[in-house]
Amino acid sequence: MTNPGGRLYGIGVGPGDPELITLKALRILRSVPVVAYQSAVDKESIARKIVSPYLDNHQIEVLFHLPRALEPENAKSIYDREVQPIADHLAAGRDVVVLCEGDPFFYGSFMYLFTRLADKYKTEVVPGVSSLMACPVALGLPFTYYNDVLTVLPAPLPIEILTSQLLTTDAAAIMKLGRHFSKIRNLLHELGLASRARYIERATSTQQRILPLDAVNPLEVPYFSMIIIPTKNKL
Amino acid sequence: MTNPGGRLYGIGVGPGDPELITLKALRILRSVPVVAYQSAVDKESIARKIVSPYLDNHQIEVLFHLPRALEPENAKSIYDREVQPIADHLAAGRDVVVLCEGDPFFYGSFMYLFTRLADKYKTEVVPGVSSLMACPVALGLPFTYYNDVLTVLPAPLPIEILTSQLLTTDAAAIMKLGRHFSKIRNLLHELGLASRARYIERATSTQQRILPLDAVNPLEVPYFSMIIIPTKNKL
Repeated sequence: MTNPGGRLYGIGVGPGDPELITLKALRILRSVPVVAYQSAVDKESIARKIVSPYLDNHQIEVLFHLPRALEPENAKSIYDREVQPIADHLAAGRDVVVLCEGDPFFYGSFMYLFTRLADKYKTEVVPGVSSLMACPVALGLPFTYYNDVLTVLPAPLPIEILTSQLLTTDAAAIMKLGRHFSKIRNLLHELGLASRARYIERATSTQQRILPLDAVNPLEVPYFSMIIIPTKNKL
Repeated sequence: MTNPGGRLYGIGVGPGDPELITLKALRILRSVPVVAYQSAVDKESIARKIVSPYLDNHQIEVLFHLPRALEPENAKSIYDREVQPIADHLAAGRDVVVLCEGDPFFYGSFMYLFTRLADKYKTEVVPGVSSLMACPVALGLPFTYYNDVLTVLPAPLPIEILTSQLLTTDAAAIMKLGRHFSKIRNLLHELGLASRARYIERATSTQQRILPLDAVNPLEVPYFSMIIIPTKNKL
């Protein structure tokens, strides 16, 4: 049963370039009175920055903080608290757009709001261009084709899982590198995959950087970085 | 060395809903004299249908045929032939947009054109919303989060590979079902995954259908269908 409050929208705003938002996401963004987005404490919201050319200062903005690296169990009470201002707007009958970097259901923190609110308020989700697609394109690397197996791996995973997954796939993307970069680079060298692997950070944004794997300074690797290992099969 | 001919654009037009095209893809689409797209012989081009609201009949349209299920080795001479009309427009100095369902570098046939033309003509690729993101959203299923391993599997793969991959991942998408549907459904039942698996075809288009796995008629499964197995981990 949805109550007669506002509508909740989770919209993918794409990987970084404001022009990589969809027509649908932009239409919805411009139609609602409340725009919510997350940010780490003291940091600019990446999602808000992406859509800043489209905001006209007539909308109420709601910032929430969802810590990224937290174990899901520990995060529960924080999410319960952070969702409250959004729930209040919905309860008051105001539609709320939640901005999601990339795509909302693909490793997106919007899911923590969705599971708390979608049973109470009419909810619509708009898929977006994910960094999984944007990074190979920015690198100029045809990524997967024909009957390739593709594996997406978050870098914080244990080395044994990363190893067995990388050895049994045709193409891979390794996300959330941050402080795990050295571990990943060493592993790729060990597995003979380093020559196929390409590094990119903040793809499609004005701060995009592409570096040879061995030229990356591990102390400067942001969370929004990716290693792409394109298909090992011949196109 | 690029020659002074036309520019080649490969643009992702999204999964089906014309509103899921990006601003960037639409801007480029409207700026070029030649629009190329593929289609199976005697079938309407899905990519052209997606952008049909944005075409104004003043553009030259080029249809090409790239057989889908062909072994890459056998496809080579066909691709060489089909790329020729596009190459001719580029050589004559005309910019050409190639429409790509979903995203160009993600299991897209545009890559066969890219590998043949990008070293000769200035080429730009625009990533798009992939069905990999659109299907979970259309199903209302949070897909992957936190440190999930995600595996993308084309259905034509041998049963042994599908089995080992499905048993070692947190979330999966099985694509290109078509005539392989029964094999996949039986396998999901065998592996105890059928209850988590959801079936969708032609996601976000006006012909979208969502069916319980056991209600699907294997004789009616189109190529553009997907089974989504969302994360086994608790959100």
